Amino acid sequence: MSLPLEWERYRLRAEEALERQRLKWRGPETLLDAMSYSVEAGGKRLRPALLLAACDACGAALSDPSAAACAVEYVHTYSLIHDDLPAMDNDTLRRGKPTNHVVFGEALAILAGDALLAEAFRALSGAYAEKPEVSAALLCELAQAASACGLVGGQVLDMQNGGNVQIAREALENLHAMKTGALIRCAVRMGAFLTGADEARLVALTRYAEKIGLAFQVTDDILDVTASAAELGKSVGKDAQQAKTTFVDLLGLDGAKSYAAELVAEALAELQSFGPRAQALREIAEFIVERKY
Amino acid sequence: MSLPLEWERYRLRAEEALERQRLKWRGPETLLDAMSYSVEAGGKRLRPALLLAACDACGAALSDPSAAACAVEYVHTYSLIHDDLPAMDNDTLRRGKPTNHVVFGEALAILAGDALLAEAFRALSGAYAEKPEVSAALLCELAQAASACGLVGGQVLDMQNGGNVQIAREALENLHAMKTGALIRCAVRMGAFLTGADEARLVALTRYAEKIGLAFQVTDDILDVTASAAELGKSVGKDAQQAKTTFVDLLGLDGAKSYAAELVAEALAELQSFGPRAQALREIAEFIVERKY
Repeated sequence: MSLPLEWERYRLRAEEALERQRLKWRGPETLLDAMSYSVEAGGKRLRPALLLAACDACGAALSDPSAAACAVEYVHTYSLIHDDLPAMDNDTLRRGKPTNHVVFGEALAILAGDALLAEAFRALSGAYAEKPEVSAALLCELAQAASACGLVGGQVLDMQNGGNVQIAREALENLHAMKTGALIRCAVRMGAFLTGADEARLVALTRYAEKIGLAFQVTDDILDVTASAAELGKSVGKDAQQAKTTFVDLLGLDGAKSYAAELVAEALAELQSFGPRAQALREIAEFIVERKY
Repeated sequence: MSLPLEWERYRLRAEEALERQRLKWRGPETLLDAMSYSVEAGGKRLRPALLLAACDACGAALSDPSAAACAVEYVHTYSLIHDDLPAMDNDTLRRGKPTNHVVFGEALAILAGDALLAEAFRALSGAYAEKPEVSAALLCELAQAASACGLVGGQVLDMQNGGNVQIAREALENLHAMKTGALIRCAVRMGAFLTGADEARLVALTRYAEKIGLAFQVTDDILDVTASAAELGKSVGKDAQQAKTTFVDLLGLDGAKSYAAELVAEALAELQSFGPRAQALREIAEFIVERKY
């Protein structure tokens, strides 16, 4: 199952940006190799694609969005490397390849994650110096998403979710709004900031991002039950093993599917005023729930 | 052995800043507790003290330097938490207290470190928005120091230093310029940026910082041989156990002591044009080599 046309176009742009940005890395080779291994492991590049597509939906970017696109992908990649560690989810397979710590050892995997997080801020703080106000807004947004009230906090709540104590729907939505939602929201908003979008557009895009972030997680929960490891390129059935509450537990398989579809419909409604320029954002929203991986 | 008067004054200012900044943290309590545990474990607050003292040496700060002082201490604390992990140095004692992973477990210690790194950028990006150019310079400087060409890269080189293969003096100096030097340099330069210091002052302070950063590490190597665990509040003799090359190996104990004294003399020479306003920076430089802990 391949990506929809527009998403694929942005994925390729993200790959090019990542390749160019890689040339600016400095540090010991072993460390850069470990960082590259996970960045180059690919994936759908959802976050940079969203950033670039949000940019295009709003009009012309004030500055080249490439560095910002790389920064969100670095933060995402760092979080995957750390989440996969033996002390955390202890995953050995990711995107069909051995995880970072399996290849490079635990110490280097921890440091590669750390360095990618720092590199995200280095890429961002270095690229938009000629537009200090845009730069400040981008950095503030990314720091917020990466912080204790964003994805790190979400990972802590996710660790506490388990052991057969079912958590309430509100708590589950809050967990995922932090763990996966924060960075998706951040990517879309950074795209908007790069065009100097007005408040109305920023609000609509923020709502769009919050809906698709949640739809993404609901679909992940569905795929963890219905897909095979070969399709997903990672272990499946882990939620059940760890006795974590999922949207499938709370809503049933059909209920979860309807909920994901409903969220996508709401996300699409937020894009109405953007016209044809938001076509890529629409395709991304639709594919998020239709995907099989 | 207590801190010299001026350093102690800045240490207290740093403590107050950290207490105030703590009120701005948001996230799951368990995570914030783990972050606080290590930030509140105290220590000499060398980096924030340097930042505040560099600020005062240059004149009046354009903005309150508190958030920047907290940001450098957060980055330092995150690096200690991760360095102490079982997969890294596997230390159980730090500043006379059990290390973060001993108290909170490995997973939460990794995440507390991650969150502190992100919080450093959040504190910085939130505090200087009304001065976008200062803000951009501070963020760029901190991102550089925290990255693969700064302290994370230094930690990788330090991991590779060991196993009885003696490394050359240049390689050892480069390792420490990254591992401990980068953040000390960054703290001093951030202090200067906060006052809008001219190029001449920035160059002098950068050289001062590079000298004392190295002197700090040479003294650490000396103390690892001569001090007791009770004095240092951490394990001693670890370098020898791990067969790491130290300045004591390369220069002998007396040679290392002379080298540290020489570096401090050179650092002090850089401060000549600053007059009495740089008194705290002088005291800090002198104490770095005289300390017993």
